[in-house]
Amino acid sequence: MHWSRSAIDESDDRFRAKFINSLSGFKSANLIGTADANGNTNLAIVSSVFHLGANPPLIGMIVRPHTVTRDTLENIQMTGSYTINHVSADIWQKAHQTSARYPKDQSEFEAVKLDEQYIEDVHAPFVSQSRLKFALKLVETQTLEVNQTVMIIGEITDVIVEPLAVQDDGFIDIELLETVAVSGLDGYHTTKRLGRLSYAKPDKDPDVIG
Amino acid sequence: MHWSRSAIDESDDRFRAKFINSLSGFKSANLIGTADANGNTNLAIVSSVFHLGANPPLIGMIVRPHTVTRDTLENIQMTGSYTINHVSADIWQKAHQTSARYPKDQSEFEAVKLDEQYIEDVHAPFVSQSRLKFALKLVETQTLEVNQTVMIIGEITDVIVEPLAVQDDGFIDIELLETVAVSGLDGYHTTKRLGRLSYAKPDKDPDVIG
Repeated sequence: MHWSRSAIDESDDRFRAKFINSLSGFKSANLIGTADANGNTNLAIVSSVFHLGANPPLIGMIVRPHTVTRDTLENIQMTGSYTINHVSADIWQKAHQTSARYPKDQSEFEAVKLDEQYIEDVHAPFVSQSRLKFALKLVETQTLEVNQTVMIIGEITDVIVEPLAVQDDGFIDIELLETVAVSGLDGYHTTKRLGRLSYAKPDKDPDVIG
Repeated sequence: MHWSRSAIDESDDRFRAKFINSLSGFKSANLIGTADANGNTNLAIVSSVFHLGANPPLIGMIVRPHTVTRDTLENIQMTGSYTINHVSADIWQKAHQTSARYPKDQSEFEAVKLDEQYIEDVHAPFVSQSRLKFALKLVETQTLEVNQTVMIIGEITDVIVEPLAVQDDGFIDIELLETVAVSGLDGYHTTKRLGRLSYAKPDKDPDVIG
């Protein structure tokens, strides 16, 4: 079935939002932990975190400035500190609930009953229940001219992960940690491994490893 | 287990690449189809495609300019046209194999035995075997100063999807299409639905829908 651009443009806003949000494929499910200068905390689920580079370790994410992630963006710009916390299968509904529009003075940690966790030298709170999480120092924010979304780039300073999940070669078994994947605006999924594949070379088929 | 930044920096390059690539969570698995001005085709798997906006429908992706995705970037800049094709469970190994460094004059379509598919007014080839795919028109490329990776932003012009997967509200059931998710550099996964959740509101818990 072929959808032309005009058919997409003619569909209603809600349909289009769900349809277009489904196209990029499976997305990461992460909770962004922040705090303002006074220590008032905020927690927001985002599905737009992406890998930018390993050396130095850099992560990007996209947020919309005038939506429920507004406080997240302001806290990051004010303090330069944020945490990214994997959503695992035991907290997926609480994680989704952070996307409700709570009043500015109410912490989503408290509202959805997830616990704050702190480490030395990191201003922002982690999610205690998350099994893989890391702290970032803001590198830059950039408003994208095409649609006024904001790209946030951060450098990883600390990683907290259950040691069992880290394999000898550095691969982290996030399926073992029951990290979930997101589809569209509101679909949540656990995963089932097909396999890891060896580094591809032109003259041979890849081997299944690990 | 706490990994400090200095512990990460002291690990060897291969370990760090696999470790850091695992942190962002599950990633999309997509094949990027392009052709140069003479119609010589190229196909490359990327896990860095992300949603940017629904209205207008915009998609971003990150590529490294001096790696195996070099031809992809050059073709997109030359022709302004590319396709994004979901990797489904029946083609995951062929899709991975496109990451081998084939000679510039060899098409990965031919090398891994995936078929080209064309529609009117789109220069770039689709992957015939892919069950959800879309064509894009280049909006801009931007070299990110932090690490010299390139962000490619494109506007969706056409979508081809199996009609059974498109639900009444616009959500596309990409699990039904057996779209795979990627973890780290080389892990592939199918998914198992937890559920869709209703739009979150402060005064109530979300309902499982769909």
